[in-house]
Amino acid sequence: MATFSHVRIIGSGLIGTSIALGLKQRGYSLSVEDEDPQSEAIAQSLIGQHGEAPDPELIIIATPISTIAPLVLEFSRRYPQATVIDIGGLKSEVLAEVEEFPEISAKFCSTHPMAGREISGALAARGDLFEGRIWIYTPSINSNERAVEIALEVIDALGAQPVLLGPMEHDQAIAGISHLPQIVSSLLSASLTSLPERDINLAGQGLKDVSRLAASNPELWANLLHSNRTAVGEFLTEFAKNLDDLSTSLFNDDLRKTKEILEIGRENHARIPGKHGGKKRDYWYLPIIIEDKPGQLARIFDACAAVEANVEDLSIEHTPGQESGLVTLALSQKDAQKVFTQLQGEGWKVHAPRESIG
Amino acid sequence: MATFSHVRIIGSGLIGTSIALGLKQRGYSLSVEDEDPQSEAIAQSLIGQHGEAPDPELIIIATPISTIAPLVLEFSRRYPQATVIDIGGLKSEVLAEVEEFPEISAKFCSTHPMAGREISGALAARGDLFEGRIWIYTPSINSNERAVEIALEVIDALGAQPVLLGPMEHDQAIAGISHLPQIVSSLLSASLTSLPERDINLAGQGLKDVSRLAASNPELWANLLHSNRTAVGEFLTEFAKNLDDLSTSLFNDDLRKTKEILEIGRENHARIPGKHGGKKRDYWYLPIIIEDKPGQLARIFDACAAVEANVEDLSIEHTPGQESGLVTLALSQKDAQKVFTQLQGEGWKVHAPRESIG
Repeated sequence: MATFSHVRIIGSGLIGTSIALGLKQRGYSLSVEDEDPQSEAIAQSLIGQHGEAPDPELIIIATPISTIAPLVLEFSRRYPQATVIDIGGLKSEVLAEVEEFPEISAKFCSTHPMAGREISGALAARGDLFEGRIWIYTPSINSNERAVEIALEVIDALGAQPVLLGPMEHDQAIAGISHLPQIVSSLLSASLTSLPERDINLAGQGLKDVSRLAASNPELWANLLHSNRTAVGEFLTEFAKNLDDLSTSLFNDDLRKTKEILEIGRENHARIPGKHGGKKRDYWYLPIIIEDKPGQLARIFDACAAVEANVEDLSIEHTPGQESGLVTLALSQKDAQKVFTQLQGEGWKVHAPRESIG
Repeated sequence: MATFSHVRIIGSGLIGTSIALGLKQRGYSLSVEDEDPQSEAIAQSLIGQHGEAPDPELIIIATPISTIAPLVLEFSRRYPQATVIDIGGLKSEVLAEVEEFPEISAKFCSTHPMAGREISGALAARGDLFEGRIWIYTPSINSNERAVEIALEVIDALGAQPVLLGPMEHDQAIAGISHLPQIVSSLLSASLTSLPERDINLAGQGLKDVSRLAASNPELWANLLHSNRTAVGEFLTEFAKNLDDLSTSLFNDDLRKTKEILEIGRENHARIPGKHGGKKRDYWYLPIIIEDKPGQLARIFDACAAVEANVEDLSIEHTPGQESGLVTLALSQKDAQKVFTQLQGEGWKVHAPRESIG
């Protein structure tokens, strides 16, 4: 049941506009504004906005980190009846600043949706951007029940999964999963200055992926890193130690030690959830050789449905112009066995289920 | 014009099997073998192999780095009429060893396709893996014209772009564009050991991309890094210096210096080419909200088959314990429109086809 209906969103970037699209689709009445008139116009045309939402019950601050606390204070004062939430990437500083005003922080709940895309701006927005994603919420020490309830309603309405974290816990986690990767990617890129053009032109997908974040905005990121420098510093110390260990093992030609470090990296990598932002699950993989023509996948899925197996994921590999392709189904171990038996019985070229896709 | 037709491929890993698939498609007669019977069976079933290619004119050694030189020597002696090429990731040592035998190195040309995936093995193989990629070739000091000509024919047949490099030049370039990214990715992953499960489950695409290479095979990579440790060491020294500078600027809250380092990273990133990441296909994407239960995908694929649309790829997003999921089909623009109309008519929650998956 909706506990609020009028929403005013400040900031029409990717996140602000995606929230607007999502809430609009679910029947909320809302307006979006931005200090950039072009971005504002795009967002407003996407949601079909006419005029400004009157008497907002909820104000969502979706602006850069340094502007969040001032805007929370400003809008809380202009609309004393409204609840205010933000969607910023760091929590400790914003909450500390807002908590200096107990009556304001009572109606405030900080949040951080774990969704984004390489491209930014209103044009990249999607109403379903948050579906199935994690959305962290961090109440202030003074947040009243209604502020938290409204934050949770937004998260729920947009199909995201709420995760409660304290401000320090949040910033610590973000240091590891977001700030350290950013630094490592930038430093890798910065270390290739001596590489001649001829060599850099040979780069494959590996360098591209690892260096992708180096394209991020230096101004924005320098501010984020410095705002979170205590937590970031701890991860950097750990990283520097590992780098030193590996440099030493290489220098000493200690193959065993190098392998050990790479193995720790591989083990930790396996803990990172899969591509869909969900928790990594123990799938079994079933490789099937198919003819590359319409109807093949339908037949495979008919076979899955016949034995009531639930396909968790699948990949399709095929070569354009070639007559066969490879479909790999990801299933629970039990379902993999059932589907294997079923497909074999139907005469498919199917390999035995295996625990790894490789 | 084909100057050879019978090819014997030793090693049915990702590269060996992908070469097999690609050459097979272009009409070459070939066989694949591997000391791992399971991998061999998968590769042979993928290419539809019956028996072994007789009297090979070309032997392709697609095995781990430490086994390449011995296998080049062995197969050159067994098939004195054949040309031998390898696809190994380092050149100096292999060429030095083979060049000890001038009559063998005359019929040998070393090569290195700049294509790979973090998943390995025959199951991950694709006949179009090399299309649009760079493929380095490094003749020995004794290579005859025919050996180089055959190497270039393989590269051309698989749609790759040949680049001539000397062995030292090759290994130096690879240290920067391949070995350093691998190390950085593994060390990032290794530095997250202290991160609790709760935090790592919050990871988004950034961490996933930067840590992707950490999933690589530690044994294989430890050997590559040690074989190339002089060149790798130089890049590690540069990287360590940059890391130290950034740690210092963070510690001293020197925002200007942090920003400067991130800017150098961004500038170098802009030098990395974007075009060699494989052949880009113009798919259209069709997002469909489904109930997360058996039979849903079968119904979707029935709909695709009904309009004779060929599904090129698909992704499934769903949240454990939630009742709905998001399936995104990748199709040609024409097929996307047909399937969209069909699914809409059947009452599916389907969004309009879009040009980007995001």
